[in-house]
Amino acid sequence: MLASLRLKKNEERRIKQGHLWVFSNEVDTKETPLKEFAPGQQVIIEASNGKPLGMGYVNPNTLICARILSRSAKLELNMKFLKKRIQAAQALRELSFDKPYYRLVFAEADGLPGLVIDRFGDVFSVQISTAGMEAVKADILQVLENLYHPQAIVLKNNIGSRELEGLSLDEEVIGDLPQELVIEENNTKFAVPVQEGQKTGWFYDHRQSRARLQQLVQGKRVLDVFSYLGGWGVAAANAGAEEVTCVDASELALDGVDANAALNGVADKLITIQGNAFDVLNALKAEAHKYDVVIVDPPAFIKRKKDFKQGFEAYKRINELAMRVLEKDGILVSASCSHHLTRDQLLQAVQMAGRHIDRQVQLFDQGHQGPDHPVHPAIGETEYIKTLFFKVGASW
Amino acid sequence: MLASLRLKKNEERRIKQGHLWVFSNEVDTKETPLKEFAPGQQVIIEASNGKPLGMGYVNPNTLICARILSRSAKLELNMKFLKKRIQAAQALRELSFDKPYYRLVFAEADGLPGLVIDRFGDVFSVQISTAGMEAVKADILQVLENLYHPQAIVLKNNIGSRELEGLSLDEEVIGDLPQELVIEENNTKFAVPVQEGQKTGWFYDHRQSRARLQQLVQGKRVLDVFSYLGGWGVAAANAGAEEVTCVDASELALDGVDANAALNGVADKLITIQGNAFDVLNALKAEAHKYDVVIVDPPAFIKRKKDFKQGFEAYKRINELAMRVLEKDGILVSASCSHHLTRDQLLQAVQMAGRHIDRQVQLFDQGHQGPDHPVHPAIGETEYIKTLFFKVGASW
Repeated sequence: MLASLRLKKNEERRIKQGHLWVFSNEVDTKETPLKEFAPGQQVIIEASNGKPLGMGYVNPNTLICARILSRSAKLELNMKFLKKRIQAAQALRELSFDKPYYRLVFAEADGLPGLVIDRFGDVFSVQISTAGMEAVKADILQVLENLYHPQAIVLKNNIGSRELEGLSLDEEVIGDLPQELVIEENNTKFAVPVQEGQKTGWFYDHRQSRARLQQLVQGKRVLDVFSYLGGWGVAAANAGAEEVTCVDASELALDGVDANAALNGVADKLITIQGNAFDVLNALKAEAHKYDVVIVDPPAFIKRKKDFKQGFEAYKRINELAMRVLEKDGILVSASCSHHLTRDQLLQAVQMAGRHIDRQVQLFDQGHQGPDHPVHPAIGETEYIKTLFFKVGASW
Repeated sequence: MLASLRLKKNEERRIKQGHLWVFSNEVDTKETPLKEFAPGQQVIIEASNGKPLGMGYVNPNTLICARILSRSAKLELNMKFLKKRIQAAQALRELSFDKPYYRLVFAEADGLPGLVIDRFGDVFSVQISTAGMEAVKADILQVLENLYHPQAIVLKNNIGSRELEGLSLDEEVIGDLPQELVIEENNTKFAVPVQEGQKTGWFYDHRQSRARLQQLVQGKRVLDVFSYLGGWGVAAANAGAEEVTCVDASELALDGVDANAALNGVADKLITIQGNAFDVLNALKAEAHKYDVVIVDPPAFIKRKKDFKQGFEAYKRINELAMRVLEKDGILVSASCSHHLTRDQLLQAVQMAGRHIDRQVQLFDQGHQGPDHPVHPAIGETEYIKTLFFKVGASW
């Protein structure tokens, strides 16, 4: 029988509407002192009247002090539970993808708070971010073993938020990680550096927008800014772009671009430029380089709410620079992965940039995070990607 | 030389940010009395300091008393102007479509306020909604003639907003309108009733979301609620759905569904039910009918801001009814064309409906109006379509 965590009066409302988080100030700490729970302990979460709202796990040391796993107070987070949720997540992916390359589990949005799993065929990249999930780490690994018999599992437990949960930062490889790990996305092959790469190694979240890009690049000159491994750029080259220039600050990333271009037989179309994106765009402009299509997919310029103003200016500036190296009536693909920047705000940033240099922009398509990054409708934080496709013309 | 319309102090700001509308209370009516302008008259719009902001046309009798056509005060709305804008609009469509079936001109978003043109191959459906555009009607027709040599042009000047502009309501056919007019969308043929149908005869705006639907229906049982001519349902049948039921209140629409099913050789898969969508869904539920995929694409439940509360409830109710006839882990496609309902609000309506009947919904994809309905980034009203794709499962 699990211990109970009791909420204060009226604090059950958000939970009843479907949210999965309990904040520490919502707990009736007289009835159920938080410090009496161990980090990661499973509990029944109750309303102030004692009625169970569901089960979840606790961390007494974090602002989000509990996350709900089920509305049934009878379940437990164990292998059976994990297997069912992971299989449901897989079924959702298989609606859209016929190859085993996708984010298999997207935390809250798949009913598994604290757990992210990317699938690269027979290799799985696992990220555990809460004490509650860490407590069942062995079960997670066993379920993956039973369901998929992986060649390797890479535990990418190196994200900063683990420290807030009182967890260590480390990486671990279980099994036999192949020298080169190749995935397929939009009929294009990519080698994924699971260990050395950013985050879980690959960003599946833009897949559909990259597919949309492929429809727009035939015979065109393309500039991919913040290219990382060429998810946009190599896909464009592979879809018939005449020439693609990838810009990134990281040498590892640009080596990846070259490798991925070679993998797809488009090495002759690819040019890479290493450097700060703002500096490189300024230099390209100074040299009067022009492109038919420019993709701007920066890392989050707004990581915390308080960075909004500065970050918004950065989005404006980078999009203005992108427009300056665009041919007349060219295409600007502008993305943001900042949850704190809304779709409307990104649109506004591009519109303001356009007005500033007297261009007329028309938004003709929009992209979202792909179906392997579902959105939990009650948890706004689960939605973060937006991609806007503009035609940029002379002022009307 | 055009007459000037002068704005009050500080009223040029929105225009400078890119908006195209002048409201009557923003005009300096001492300097330039509105009543001295004829409806549809072309003018130069100036800031309070006399600096020209651009050219446009006036209607002294409407709330939006002027619409800007160009930021250059030297241009005029004439055949040359129309030709250039229409050709630019065509070029934007040709980025995405290789067949001549699309909305060719989408008013403000293509720099042609007051003008909508749908293209059905060699037949054009034209809707003029302002006195300013009506004043150049002959030029519009001549430009279409010169550019496309149309078989027929249907003037669908029967929308209510024309009356506010002081224009008559009428329909007119120029040329030789074929008995049956067939377009192609998502590899599916549709006969379009240009004269008897709703609006311009066909809704191109959902094309991409319908293409997305086609990827999800193989072997599935599909229910298309508010089907009109079967834009969703017949496309689904044509993409491999096992059985499709179309529900609409209009007999004309359902006759169209039958005709379109026959056109694509899928008549044996199609079932039609005539009736009020709410009533039909209740009846289907009472009879324990279940579907793998349900599409709910209602007419705007919120036409004016003041209808919000009632309309929001209607969106909740119709989506709840849709979920009730959905198989476990089925797919709900929920659309709205109400500009006054935001994407987040539609998401919230579906989430509330799901909670109400204890279902867990996951948003796994999102659709927008297609690229032939571009969005003007400074004019929120130009964006109106949202489509949400949900997996609907048992409560977590």
